[in-house]
Amino acid sequence: MIKHALNVTREANFAEWYQTVITEADMAEESGVRGCMVIRPWGYGVWERIQRLLDDRIKGAGYDNTYFPVFIPLSYFEKEADHVEGFAKEMAVVTHHRLIADGKGGLMPDPTAKLEEPLIVRPTSETVIGAAFSRWVQSWRDLPVQINQWANVVRWEMRTRMFLRTSEFLWQEAHAAYATAEQARAETLKGLEIYRSFAEECAAMPVIAGEKPENERFPGAVSTYSIEAMMQDGKALQAGTSHFLGTTFSSAQDIKFQNSEGQQELAQTISWGMSTRMIGGMIMTHGDDDGMRVPPRLAPWQVVIVPMLRDNDEDAALIEYCQGVQQELGKLQAFGEPVRALLDLKAIKAVTKRWGWIKKGAPIVVEVGGRDMAGGNVSVTVRTDLYKEDGKLNSQIVARDAFLGDVVGTLEGIQKTLFDQAKARTDANIVRDVTDFAGLESYFENAGKFPGWVEVEWSKPTGAELDKVVERIKALKLTFRNVSNDAAPATGTCIFTGAPAVERILVARAY
Amino acid sequence: MIKHALNVTREANFAEWYQTVITEADMAEESGVRGCMVIRPWGYGVWERIQRLLDDRIKGAGYDNTYFPVFIPLSYFEKEADHVEGFAKEMAVVTHHRLIADGKGGLMPDPTAKLEEPLIVRPTSETVIGAAFSRWVQSWRDLPVQINQWANVVRWEMRTRMFLRTSEFLWQEAHAAYATAEQARAETLKGLEIYRSFAEECAAMPVIAGEKPENERFPGAVSTYSIEAMMQDGKALQAGTSHFLGTTFSSAQDIKFQNSEGQQELAQTISWGMSTRMIGGMIMTHGDDDGMRVPPRLAPWQVVIVPMLRDNDEDAALIEYCQGVQQELGKLQAFGEPVRALLDLKAIKAVTKRWGWIKKGAPIVVEVGGRDMAGGNVSVTVRTDLYKEDGKLNSQIVARDAFLGDVVGTLEGIQKTLFDQAKARTDANIVRDVTDFAGLESYFENAGKFPGWVEVEWSKPTGAELDKVVERIKALKLTFRNVSNDAAPATGTCIFTGAPAVERILVARAY
Repeated sequence: MIKHALNVTREANFAEWYQTVITEADMAEESGVRGCMVIRPWGYGVWERIQRLLDDRIKGAGYDNTYFPVFIPLSYFEKEADHVEGFAKEMAVVTHHRLIADGKGGLMPDPTAKLEEPLIVRPTSETVIGAAFSRWVQSWRDLPVQINQWANVVRWEMRTRMFLRTSEFLWQEAHAAYATAEQARAETLKGLEIYRSFAEECAAMPVIAGEKPENERFPGAVSTYSIEAMMQDGKALQAGTSHFLGTTFSSAQDIKFQNSEGQQELAQTISWGMSTRMIGGMIMTHGDDDGMRVPPRLAPWQVVIVPMLRDNDEDAALIEYCQGVQQELGKLQAFGEPVRALLDLKAIKAVTKRWGWIKKGAPIVVEVGGRDMAGGNVSVTVRTDLYKEDGKLNSQIVARDAFLGDVVGTLEGIQKTLFDQAKARTDANIVRDVTDFAGLESYFENAGKFPGWVEVEWSKPTGAELDKVVERIKALKLTFRNVSNDAAPATGTCIFTGAPAVERILVARAY
Repeated sequence: MIKHALNVTREANFAEWYQTVITEADMAEESGVRGCMVIRPWGYGVWERIQRLLDDRIKGAGYDNTYFPVFIPLSYFEKEADHVEGFAKEMAVVTHHRLIADGKGGLMPDPTAKLEEPLIVRPTSETVIGAAFSRWVQSWRDLPVQINQWANVVRWEMRTRMFLRTSEFLWQEAHAAYATAEQARAETLKGLEIYRSFAEECAAMPVIAGEKPENERFPGAVSTYSIEAMMQDGKALQAGTSHFLGTTFSSAQDIKFQNSEGQQELAQTISWGMSTRMIGGMIMTHGDDDGMRVPPRLAPWQVVIVPMLRDNDEDAALIEYCQGVQQELGKLQAFGEPVRALLDLKAIKAVTKRWGWIKKGAPIVVEVGGRDMAGGNVSVTVRTDLYKEDGKLNSQIVARDAFLGDVVGTLEGIQKTLFDQAKARTDANIVRDVTDFAGLESYFENAGKFPGWVEVEWSKPTGAELDKVVERIKALKLTFRNVSNDAAPATGTCIFTGAPAVERILVARAY
């Protein structure tokens, strides 16, 4: 039997396992500031990789990076009723701009430095970016405008969980304005496709891309699209959203242009965002009972070299040998970039380092002892193939040159294995043969600890009728996820209303 | 006579020229939010280049990137009196976490959602990072800890100026803890050296690196070091600071470790930061009466290709020819990176594009018309050599292959020219022969519109004696900058106190 590196398994307690991975893999920690976390080096390193690869795709789609203020005046929110309704319950409000002594040895906001108009710490930037668009857009020649920003945002959350739901989080938000609704909707879907391809190709995370139902729309949006990923406990995680906003914000913010016939029109706007939540999704997609497994494309270090130092005269030669391996790795290309190899020279025991890197999920750990060096070898551990059948660690002694010859293929193999495992699990756990509400109840009653998702036919009710349906699934602790772009057409009746069905929607427990 | 692209010259009105460059070069604009700016694509592109190159150097020095909360609880500031004294007058205070309807059709902070403890939007992160260090550091084996973050910070400013002084700005802040004061001070100077080399090598901005006097120290620091650059109006700009904090924050935040003899000691901490202010410094160092001149190493696009499209059948061939040039450029390496070349296909006139890129300061603009293409040529304009002697634009028609053969050398030449011009100007405007206070007064009375700096001998007074000296130079609108690491030793008497001088300090007008 295998003795795993973590003291809790996914099976035993998934929520505790998740927190344990975050701690043991050096991803993040509580900050002491309510609802906010400290993102530690390995976690932030993954975020930097996400930024680099996603940013390339965003720029490739013709977006320019920019930066807008963290503060949004209260009056900007007052202009768009639906939007403020959706966010007003969870915003940080700045009311003063100075502190003074409180007369008891402490500090307090200075009553004479109260802001005339409170400022909101941005929960999202449609309003302040819309105000800029209204300055930038005068004529059809100024369109499209396509910008992106990487920023921190704040939504006051009562119950927080690291990476998944924190009061402050990091994200990118892309915003664009177009002349026609058709173009704007098409570009909304392009944003969604960037997320789908990024999630699947870079994060090795299979997703369902599709449109959210009315009750799950972004406040102020005409349509919201999402990518949804299945975690190992069967729950759904919304990992990115793209919104067709129509003229909601252009009418509130006065984004008007003169069309080629000389008439004034409102621009059609869109926005799409992906956040540090993605990291939580990666942990729950790829992690195992030994810790995190980072897909090689997003690993800050793809290969970590650990010399078995012995505090003696041979150490210098051993380090030199390892540096040689590191240099050769840096000359190789995996996924179109130089291989990222770290030589870990920290003053801790080699075995502690090995397990540290396994828990962090470094794709390949290479250990080198004196005997390995003498034989021109290295000892290689691959994160997706950690144990032999007998439960012992599967470290293979191979010739240095053979390792260097194989390493790119090994990294590509790890990336593929992680995707394939997650894809097989997702595919095996989406049920499509439930044809009535009783069947839905019965599935979730009997599916065991980690139920999957159910795709059902529905009549796409709206307004009060939808509210009633939402109440019914909420009673089962279920939510609507999205209508997959790849869903089969509906052929029967709605399992909620009995009316003719118009599409197939995913129902699941969710983060 | 040359007719320049801007409608105001540096000579006529330097402050207005600065704002005009920012607008005309598409760097930034007013946001509508008090004291905050919108950083537009070209300005943000320069910041991304700064981030990329500075981040490489910071990581090379052994720092890991991380992310800490934007909010700092009030009580964290109460722990360190000097620090709060220095910042308390200019901080944004969050007091509520929800908005509600105000009954008049608008919104207001919800009185029932008042925070028990106000949160400060970080003006700098020593306190919250110090709290993390106290969790991370237990033993001498845990030291050093070296981390960095790229973040937004807020200091409430009454008078703001884009890039130079804004309520919100972007920066990196590096923080580290060491076992000994000697090591900490040495590492403080390493941070300073990173700034010096970055400023000179990447931003082509010659600087004076040295220690600030007591009255200019960071709140809570034992020593503050800076790099100071001379702007074209002769004023000094502090472009980066590095602080030796001693045990100020480790005692306030309880950052203690057990040394190798088993005794408890306070760690010695340091911090160093560089911000978007650097971009303002680059504008005032390199800009001219035609707009910005961006050093090639920091230019988002080093070569911009403008096809002279004529809305006819030849356009497709012209674009193809330009794409060929762009592809060849991308295969070349300048400064160790692929050349960054943009093909500008926007639907505006070629001549408008040309002047747009000149105002933005793209190092090389390449225009290609049908005749150029037919002859296998391109028309090249180099930003640092813009006009012929007769005042006409100095665009040279050269063979495509000759251009491609020369372009890396041209980019290197532009980088060097910008540095050399700024260096010559700086060197020519530091006066070192003032030996008494009357001489100081006389220099600034007679130096004309754009005076330089004066390096004087002083006795390094402290406390009340220093305050008096500061009052005297303040009356002349002067400030102390720093004591250059390269300053000659003092040999005479202090021009302020008459006591024996101990060092030479720079005095200047400043931003």
